[in-house]
Amino acid sequence: MITVLCGGVGAARLLSLLEREAREFKFTAVVNVADDLVLHGLTICPDLDTVTYTLAKINNEVMGWGLVDETWRVNKELEKLGGQAWFQLGDRDMATHLYRSQRLAEGATKTEVARELAAHHKVGLPILPVTDEHVATYLETDIGELSFQEYFVKHRHNVPVYKITFRGIEEATPTNEVMAALSTSERIIIAPSNPLLSIAPVLAVPGVRELLQTRRESIAAVSPLIGGRALKGPADHLMSELGFEPSSYGVAAYYGDLVGHWFIDEVDIDQAEKIEGLGVSVTVLPTIMAEPTSASALAQGILSWLS
Amino acid sequence: MITVLCGGVGAARLLSLLEREAREFKFTAVVNVADDLVLHGLTICPDLDTVTYTLAKINNEVMGWGLVDETWRVNKELEKLGGQAWFQLGDRDMATHLYRSQRLAEGATKTEVARELAAHHKVGLPILPVTDEHVATYLETDIGELSFQEYFVKHRHNVPVYKITFRGIEEATPTNEVMAALSTSERIIIAPSNPLLSIAPVLAVPGVRELLQTRRESIAAVSPLIGGRALKGPADHLMSELGFEPSSYGVAAYYGDLVGHWFIDEVDIDQAEKIEGLGVSVTVLPTIMAEPTSASALAQGILSWLS
Repeated sequence: MITVLCGGVGAARLLSLLEREAREFKFTAVVNVADDLVLHGLTICPDLDTVTYTLAKINNEVMGWGLVDETWRVNKELEKLGGQAWFQLGDRDMATHLYRSQRLAEGATKTEVARELAAHHKVGLPILPVTDEHVATYLETDIGELSFQEYFVKHRHNVPVYKITFRGIEEATPTNEVMAALSTSERIIIAPSNPLLSIAPVLAVPGVRELLQTRRESIAAVSPLIGGRALKGPADHLMSELGFEPSSYGVAAYYGDLVGHWFIDEVDIDQAEKIEGLGVSVTVLPTIMAEPTSASALAQGILSWLS
Repeated sequence: MITVLCGGVGAARLLSLLEREAREFKFTAVVNVADDLVLHGLTICPDLDTVTYTLAKINNEVMGWGLVDETWRVNKELEKLGGQAWFQLGDRDMATHLYRSQRLAEGATKTEVARELAAHHKVGLPILPVTDEHVATYLETDIGELSFQEYFVKHRHNVPVYKITFRGIEEATPTNEVMAALSTSERIIIAPSNPLLSIAPVLAVPGVRELLQTRRESIAAVSPLIGGRALKGPADHLMSELGFEPSSYGVAAYYGDLVGHWFIDEVDIDQAEKIEGLGVSVTVLPTIMAEPTSASALAQGILSWLS
């Protein structure tokens, strides 16, 4: 069994690829919940939903988020009412949030709800929130403190960030399912998700980093930066803003001795030696999963490391 | 100024009629909130919404509840997910609940949200929840204890009821707006809403009944029963189940010395004398508001009493 530490889109794509191309392995997803939000009374878990929708093949490839065959009646009406329509909730997607919110109100955990939704959508692999407790990312920015989704959606991650905090993280505990997956997995892969916003709050749940530090040789990561740029989202400029080099090397240095092996894109071949200098092994290969040939090469590379 | 004590549909129709036919008066609606519910994380206020939608002329006349031009995408998806789709939430209607839930989470009161929604829908008269606090109707029935909406919607008010309780009512307080309306109104009208389920939890908010008892001669009520039957809802069999006579007389006896004048339907003319025996005056007239001639007669009757 292989565990993948996940944020949203990048992780969902990697899981989807591995499920298709590495059928001899069983995968488990451990997913960030620090960008979850409560809006309109609804508990919304964007990363869990992105992973679930993508593995269920009902994700919206055109928009890059949300569901296929989506409509927007509720959000349009909400906008007319003067409500907070900036967090574009689709009608199909809304049903997920209603379902989850009601189940949580009935006493179910996020883990249980994620399992129910995965089962409904016939997703074969376990999708585990890293914690069942409430953790929330806040960002200190040029225009004041923002919640994650205010930063990400309302302001389109277009404001400089000084500091990131994960509220509630010290009091949070990883679920038993997560700790079991992390300790019994043969290998662990850190998805090419945003290191500072998606993976950091997975690692920061007390006990997770400590456990992973005992397993360095079993841990690989796929760099989320290609030629210093993120394919999607603010990882690149966020690295700069917070004092890290916006490059595959910068990300490798940021993760430090947590990772034993790196997969970096071929455009970053000149950084391989510098990354090896951190005491880790490196595979250089195409990593853009949106391109079939490149995706296949990445899958083969990861398969070699797994075998 | 005239205050009308309101439940849902019957009260909304009466207000709509009075607004149209008694233009020389200003009306205020004081509305029941004990059938409000929290479902899927959303705070839903059916009576406030019914009154608002009806006065805004966007209520769905065909269904008898909800909004015109409604669609059901979210609820259909929720049903597919195995969620609690029995409380049929329309897509347009959903926006109201999202808006209200978010505003309440931001610290607004139900009174403020009702005012915002009424303003948005260009409703001219104040629509006041009787209290801003949480009050919830529960019913002891043949199949166990049910919340109001479980009884009303899920079981279509089709199970015998032994007892009705309004949880939280002793701790609730009427809003200042409500107390001001009730004490300064020239006249007060009790709408033909369900006496036991809609009007009782308005009267039971501490302070309301006590204030009204000082104003008996200014208070009239329209009987919700016609020939012993409710036009809509379970008022008739609920009266029987709880030991009251299911008739206009039974309702008059139930309200007792709270009401100084009664409007009863012409089919109940034989009960007029018996009701007058309770020490109140009675007007016998057509009361079915769905029929224009009858509605007009009711309006004229109320106008005579108001003038």
